[in-house]
Amino acid sequence: MAIYLDNAATTRPFDETVSAVASCMRECYWNPSALYAPAMKAEQELSLARQAVAGSVGAMERDVLFTSGGTESNNLAIMGYMAVQRPGGVILFSGAEHPAVKNACLEAAALYGHTTEEIPLTQDGAVDMEGLEALLDERVRLICVMQVCNETGVAMSLEKLVRLRDRLAPQAAIHVDGVQGYLRHPFSMAKLAVQSYAISAHKVHGPRGVGALVVRSGHRIRPLVVGGGQQGNLRSGTENTPGIAGLRAAIQRYPSLDECAAHMKVLKEIVLAELAASGIDHRVIGKPPEDMESAGHILAVSFPLVRAETLVHALEAEEIYIGTGAACSSKKGKRSQVLMAMKMPPEVIDSTVRISFSMENTPDEAAYAAKRIVEQTTQLGKIRRR
Amino acid sequence: MAIYLDNAATTRPFDETVSAVASCMRECYWNPSALYAPAMKAEQELSLARQAVAGSVGAMERDVLFTSGGTESNNLAIMGYMAVQRPGGVILFSGAEHPAVKNACLEAAALYGHTTEEIPLTQDGAVDMEGLEALLDERVRLICVMQVCNETGVAMSLEKLVRLRDRLAPQAAIHVDGVQGYLRHPFSMAKLAVQSYAISAHKVHGPRGVGALVVRSGHRIRPLVVGGGQQGNLRSGTENTPGIAGLRAAIQRYPSLDECAAHMKVLKEIVLAELAASGIDHRVIGKPPEDMESAGHILAVSFPLVRAETLVHALEAEEIYIGTGAACSSKKGKRSQVLMAMKMPPEVIDSTVRISFSMENTPDEAAYAAKRIVEQTTQLGKIRRR
Repeated sequence: MAIYLDNAATTRPFDETVSAVASCMRECYWNPSALYAPAMKAEQELSLARQAVAGSVGAMERDVLFTSGGTESNNLAIMGYMAVQRPGGVILFSGAEHPAVKNACLEAAALYGHTTEEIPLTQDGAVDMEGLEALLDERVRLICVMQVCNETGVAMSLEKLVRLRDRLAPQAAIHVDGVQGYLRHPFSMAKLAVQSYAISAHKVHGPRGVGALVVRSGHRIRPLVVGGGQQGNLRSGTENTPGIAGLRAAIQRYPSLDECAAHMKVLKEIVLAELAASGIDHRVIGKPPEDMESAGHILAVSFPLVRAETLVHALEAEEIYIGTGAACSSKKGKRSQVLMAMKMPPEVIDSTVRISFSMENTPDEAAYAAKRIVEQTTQLGKIRRR
Repeated sequence: MAIYLDNAATTRPFDETVSAVASCMRECYWNPSALYAPAMKAEQELSLARQAVAGSVGAMERDVLFTSGGTESNNLAIMGYMAVQRPGGVILFSGAEHPAVKNACLEAAALYGHTTEEIPLTQDGAVDMEGLEALLDERVRLICVMQVCNETGVAMSLEKLVRLRDRLAPQAAIHVDGVQGYLRHPFSMAKLAVQSYAISAHKVHGPRGVGALVVRSGHRIRPLVVGGGQQGNLRSGTENTPGIAGLRAAIQRYPSLDECAAHMKVLKEIVLAELAASGIDHRVIGKPPEDMESAGHILAVSFPLVRAETLVHALEAEEIYIGTGAACSSKKGKRSQVLMAMKMPPEVIDSTVRISFSMENTPDEAAYAAKRIVEQTTQLGKIRRR
């Protein structure tokens, strides 16, 4: 039996997700913009899904826009906001941001006449609040900090960020990339004064090619994709009703935050206990797992004896699938920019793997995978030392 | 039994499409960018789909980009090209273009310092070639003309357009919106020197939320959505493998152009014969159906006795679904800009409905629907005259 532990790259859709997508494709294929009654069923599907997303992040139905995924959501939030700002603004993004955020910031700066600054990270992968403080002034228009880092699992201190912004740069908007935190780590726009929040469906057992951007009322953005004027003119194109119904099914099926956190914690502890018991040389990257600012579902570990890629392929032969950091940069052979921002030495970066859990992983899987990781690392380390 | 004759708004996915999407969601959910072998199956799905799209339009596999739909494809082609042009260029778009094209032209002009001009239409809805000729000079950088008009079914003379461009503005690129023509009307990038071609999956019984842009090698564009660098950096975001597999299934299941054209012609002739036999007052909008430049699957007809919206709702009560022009503008109650560009009087515009066929419609359906249209129009006309 294969053991899939690369859930931060993508998750297996829930059966409920697949059913919702297929049944909507079969029975609710109507164009939501058409005039006749069945099309209103399609329109209603969209409304129910907007309510589900809004309910899950403490927002209003009208704040929810559907997109083609997390990347588009982040692009829309960042480019859409900076397009309506007077040129000469400053965009801040943390050193932990995903390329979908970082590159959107660079693109917005290049296209609309702004500049960017990177917010430094601490050695354990959190936003360096003193470094951020030094960057906050009246020129800052947008601050981008992710909810949970896809490479380290570090949950950023968004409360502190909001307080600092309010004190030192109250004119600045905050955009949160929620792709790796959504449904798995606490977040509420009702409690936290951020302006926008990006969601990806396929990271939470929803369908691929579907995402959402939650935009606080009154926070004005310019659309990225224009046309027929769907979604209040902010995202044109016939809505992907089946995909959106699939996202709603995933949200409904997802366990509560507490249940999710407890499940992930158990899995992570099993792996860490096995590593500790084996005595094998290893180092947890990012916040220590017991820290409140460590999300349960992502565990980055360096095994100095082995190159990450070698370990991934050795485990693959046993049908155990883990990652080497962000999937999108895996094949490019470039060193992780996030770990570089954390000032990790090259040998640590090159030996860091990412183990990421989902609700579908069992304690037995975690225990077995950890044993095989220990065994493979030991074997590969011996070969390397020869 | 419901009769669905609004296939230009969207089509019912083929059973093969639904199966391909569901089976890929279940078995090939891997992130195509991951390092391990199963992810390569996902990568291979993408490659097979690129080949299917390329084969269907006489292009190369490497020319195919997947997007979230026709609207994004058109936006990417237009904004992506004009973003890399020196400011001060002129963008031409025909008066028949869909808002996804027209608004993208206006947006590209506003954001990147260009201007736009609308190419006039003839009274029968074709591009006015003399009008176009007058607009072509050395400042023109991009010409946007659709393959088949979504409101009238008129197939534009792309060969003539290419010849005119080559003679009078050889520096200008041509973008073709193929959303309403793809697989239903002849088109080949091997034969026709256009630079880009936009496709939507859901108009050809494929899944919603999936599209493609075919870009000729060497035609440089700037990405609209940036991030992890997928698809050669031109369209970032984890690829929607299930949706893309669904598009491939639809392409494979689609009949040949000849078979498709013959089927649509039969349906259209049945409706027109019924209307003629009834003696009811009506007028075909656009090219006469026997004209080579009329695509078989779309029939726009004005019934002067009845308002289009009234007729649509009357037929809806009998489970016969037709449209009032472009779905995306149906609810806005605005007069069709395309029919206005054809200089149709307001009373003709307000009484024009769109009947659009698919491969799934039968001759019996066409005959029955036409009878009901005649009956309803007669009844409603009487009420109106009282």
